[in-house]
Amino acid sequence: MKRLFFISLFLMSLNGFSQIERIEPPFWWTDMKMDELQVMLYGKDIAEYEVSAEEPVILRNVRRTENPNYLFVTINSGDLAAGKYKLNFSKNGKKKFSRNYELKEREENSAEREGFDASDAIYLIMPDRFANGNPENDSSPELQEKANRSKQGGRHGGDIQGIIDHLDYLEDLGITALWSTPLLEDDDPQYSYHTYAISDAYNIDKRYGSNEDYRRLADEMHKRDMKLIMDYVTNHWGAEHWMIKDLPTYDWIHQFPGYENSNYRMTTQYDQHKSKRDLRYCVDGWFTSTMPDLNQSNPLVLKYLTQNAIWWIEYAGLDGFRVDTYSYNDKDGIAKWTKAIMDEYPHFNIVGEVWMHDQAQISYWQKDSRIGAIQSFNSYLPSVMDFTLHDAIGTMFNEEEQNWGEGMVKAYDNFVNDFLYTNINNLLVFIENHDTNRFNEIYDGDVDKYKLAMTLILTTRGIPQLYYGSEIGMRGDKGKGDGDIRRDFPGGWESDEQSAFLKAERSAKQQEYYSFTKKLLNYRKDQPVLHFGKLLQYLPENNVYVYFRYNEDQRVMVVINNNPDEQVLNLSKYSEGLKNHISGKEIISGKSMELKDKLSIGGNKSMVIELN
Amino acid sequence: MKRLFFISLFLMSLNGFSQIERIEPPFWWTDMKMDELQVMLYGKDIAEYEVSAEEPVILRNVRRTENPNYLFVTINSGDLAAGKYKLNFSKNGKKKFSRNYELKEREENSAEREGFDASDAIYLIMPDRFANGNPENDSSPELQEKANRSKQGGRHGGDIQGIIDHLDYLEDLGITALWSTPLLEDDDPQYSYHTYAISDAYNIDKRYGSNEDYRRLADEMHKRDMKLIMDYVTNHWGAEHWMIKDLPTYDWIHQFPGYENSNYRMTTQYDQHKSKRDLRYCVDGWFTSTMPDLNQSNPLVLKYLTQNAIWWIEYAGLDGFRVDTYSYNDKDGIAKWTKAIMDEYPHFNIVGEVWMHDQAQISYWQKDSRIGAIQSFNSYLPSVMDFTLHDAIGTMFNEEEQNWGEGMVKAYDNFVNDFLYTNINNLLVFIENHDTNRFNEIYDGDVDKYKLAMTLILTTRGIPQLYYGSEIGMRGDKGKGDGDIRRDFPGGWESDEQSAFLKAERSAKQQEYYSFTKKLLNYRKDQPVLHFGKLLQYLPENNVYVYFRYNEDQRVMVVINNNPDEQVLNLSKYSEGLKNHISGKEIISGKSMELKDKLSIGGNKSMVIELN
Repeated sequence: MKRLFFISLFLMSLNGFSQIERIEPPFWWTDMKMDELQVMLYGKDIAEYEVSAEEPVILRNVRRTENPNYLFVTINSGDLAAGKYKLNFSKNGKKKFSRNYELKEREENSAEREGFDASDAIYLIMPDRFANGNPENDSSPELQEKANRSKQGGRHGGDIQGIIDHLDYLEDLGITALWSTPLLEDDDPQYSYHTYAISDAYNIDKRYGSNEDYRRLADEMHKRDMKLIMDYVTNHWGAEHWMIKDLPTYDWIHQFPGYENSNYRMTTQYDQHKSKRDLRYCVDGWFTSTMPDLNQSNPLVLKYLTQNAIWWIEYAGLDGFRVDTYSYNDKDGIAKWTKAIMDEYPHFNIVGEVWMHDQAQISYWQKDSRIGAIQSFNSYLPSVMDFTLHDAIGTMFNEEEQNWGEGMVKAYDNFVNDFLYTNINNLLVFIENHDTNRFNEIYDGDVDKYKLAMTLILTTRGIPQLYYGSEIGMRGDKGKGDGDIRRDFPGGWESDEQSAFLKAERSAKQQEYYSFTKKLLNYRKDQPVLHFGKLLQYLPENNVYVYFRYNEDQRVMVVINNNPDEQVLNLSKYSEGLKNHISGKEIISGKSMELKDKLSIGGNKSMVIELN
Repeated sequence: MKRLFFISLFLMSLNGFSQIERIEPPFWWTDMKMDELQVMLYGKDIAEYEVSAEEPVILRNVRRTENPNYLFVTINSGDLAAGKYKLNFSKNGKKKFSRNYELKEREENSAEREGFDASDAIYLIMPDRFANGNPENDSSPELQEKANRSKQGGRHGGDIQGIIDHLDYLEDLGITALWSTPLLEDDDPQYSYHTYAISDAYNIDKRYGSNEDYRRLADEMHKRDMKLIMDYVTNHWGAEHWMIKDLPTYDWIHQFPGYENSNYRMTTQYDQHKSKRDLRYCVDGWFTSTMPDLNQSNPLVLKYLTQNAIWWIEYAGLDGFRVDTYSYNDKDGIAKWTKAIMDEYPHFNIVGEVWMHDQAQISYWQKDSRIGAIQSFNSYLPSVMDFTLHDAIGTMFNEEEQNWGEGMVKAYDNFVNDFLYTNINNLLVFIENHDTNRFNEIYDGDVDKYKLAMTLILTTRGIPQLYYGSEIGMRGDKGKGDGDIRRDFPGGWESDEQSAFLKAERSAKQQEYYSFTKKLLNYRKDQPVLHFGKLLQYLPENNVYVYFRYNEDQRVMVVINNNPDEQVLNLSKYSEGLKNHISGKEIISGKSMELKDKLSIGGNKSMVIELN
């Protein structure tokens, strides 16, 4: 990067605008709903220049900060046709140089794009750990951390090409959407593999590929009718971010002065008794010392983040965002950011990480929340994560005796509070992610428990999300370090002894995980009733949980027996759900069955019965 | 009862209305807001008679049911002056007999009575277990279960006189309100001591005393500026209730037919996915086989329960209700019942037992709840119980290391969700009640932990509630049976070897519990800031919880150190709470102190500092 930079500086110098090192966004589009654009110009003492533009460009605002290396120029982008527009820079009345700014034509129907929804099944990937499609880019001369696959917390070399290479695998598995953890440049000297400490918001990390590669990933996915979800971080950047090293304004980030750690108490966001100090330490405190906390209440920052997010949607053709540490952000700032994006793309989807253990608190963050409304708060965030279901999943399958509140009742009890949410179909349901223990670690490789859990998240309301390797029973213990829950997918590297991408190389046990997952995912794919159908649930008895998904056309009965013994259900109890149906087809076994009197189910087994 | 009944039947027979065995309510009052009265007449084949009244009484409705022994006559009570009004009964056009019905004058300002509130401290008594003031009434020839103090689940002989005898003790302790578990007749053959299986809704159980005794209790309390709270049961009666034995209508109670047990899943009350079956088993199922479940959706039942409740308020001069198993009732029925009472007495208070472990679920049941409003539900119930705080109190004082979410953070986290409630000052806060383990059992007689807990509930928002014997460290393990958490108060019986009512006889340890409780209760009594002041709380550090109560005039700092080691607080952190105060008086020690730089607090100690 540095080398390239010096070359381009030299070239710029030749044609008269050496002072500008960066322009962000690098270009924009016409016909956006947002009618103004804030162009950030960066260069040595750039603020000493007067900037002007020729008709039809109007400079609505030229903002200088205490750092003379920045100029924030707001133009009337909404009025302009596609093309290149000249900005002129002068000093003491003399024109010194000019610079073109390009507005491109948008893709057709860009604003109308449909985000991911409950008809999707999302696959979460940590790109450094999934597949190394291009061993050439494992390290980059311009980036500090070099590949070292032997280190748990090192860079292992996975990349965008590796993902593209396995889209057929994912499609075959039944996946329809991909959430990759961040791919933007993270030049931290170590632990950069997670890429949550971004050093450049407009460029893909070279060790993953290029911006063009990312767009190609989206294109390849769209060809397969799959959706791409970007992991967006509004809360913080990495300490290595070029703007952090030359702050536009002191308050671009939260300073105490300098670093104080967050207290992580997101509850201060709604505690009516909170001290100002605790709220400040939550929201303004840094996630870690290497992640300066962005100040979204600074309009310049908020606009920068908003435009950057929109730029990536428009540039790469994204279908959704997952927003990291959503509830650590300045509450009003993140709501404005979210609203601006949803205003631009009304059918887009954004899921926020709101990692709490209380449904009222989670629902607080969903668009039009009745809970948020108590404090006149509306996040405009369409989707939140069902962390309380995840909490339940982490213990309930080990509770074989149904004590009060234990076993399958935990799932039942979770859905009881669905009335607190404004849109239950827009809840992400998952058994694990990149920040949690692996399900298969908790349940010590018990494939039966996996099948019960997978049956649940693939047939209940919401948007199911798998984590790479769920489908082959990958293990990982967070207690051994984050790297342990982010192991390399076997077969992602040429040197791997085994490729779990290939049926022929999967172990019998991996295959058992895989084929169950594939069967249910592919079944779910074409069942509108499992996407948006209503849910009717029965209080579990003897640790057997029975529920129905139904709409006007279809009706599916799900039975999850978390009891180690065979159970016989008296079907008369479920007449409301069965609604006169007396037969069905069980999807896992493929068998047709009568549903008249009794239904027998084996210990630790599940059934998904499509009623005839 | 039976003997008396036969005598009165004989007398009634003489003066011509032998057919009427019961009239309920037995009398009523003028000038009630409720302008009609439903008089229930009970007697052999009473429905075969025509009933009429003379001006100015108007019979607005005469309702017969399938049981000819009942007549429900609705009269225009709202229009009538005090006095006795004649109801005439005839058959085949011939007048057979008549009966007077009395409307009394109300006490002055009866409708304006002020219920208990956060300025009170409530003492919960199980009357059978508190004090035996009248050994003559331990058994009653008319009631089945006889006194047997040697049985854990037997009747021990405590009574109303026993309570009256110790009102001075309670006043001295600093108690301002009394909640006694039910005192109405419970003629169950066993386990009748808890008196939740009522057999007569208009008469005090003779083993406790008479209706007049109950009114005398209220009068004696009012003389001391104390308030009386009746434990009202709308959900069920006992199987021995005379009306259950001769049901007015088949659907007076919930029948399946006959008995099915409740599933106790109150969550079906708001689960949008519930099956009708599960809701029915919750709400209509019986609490136990000996407690038939009343059908509040039957207007006759609802009116009966409403009038009965109002009758007791008016008759005894009550200051509040505690309503048993509030959330097991028919949701709309109990809301109507509650609203009717609050309409009649706008400043009254009613606290409902809504025993859940989720604040959104508890707040659902409070008047004007924003959570209830999601489902267009309004209970009109002013006060609910802070069971989640109770949950926290049951474990947090054993968590001496402050792991995430443990120790004092549990208290902090509880108050975080206060925004879900419509009125946090109307939450009952308590460390134990008659259905829970004793605090002192959980904490194995650790008086320091008791002091921490008592500091919390006597200085945080809400209405503190003690359970008889809390103040002397009584123990009790629910695992050993309900009787173990309902032991006799030592000294309540003449034969007791020791009386903990008397300082001279209390052990040193009992005295330590007692004097701490008394000191804080009596301090709290006169501190408006602890009643209705705002709360400002700080995230606990090192297991030390600091909060402030404040209003325009006063400011109190509370420090609870749940760390076994001494802690030194840097006071600059608390500047928002201290608000320039630099000294104060610590109430527990009585010492004045500077509050300038540091504050030191001993291990497992608390401080209540009135800022100067």
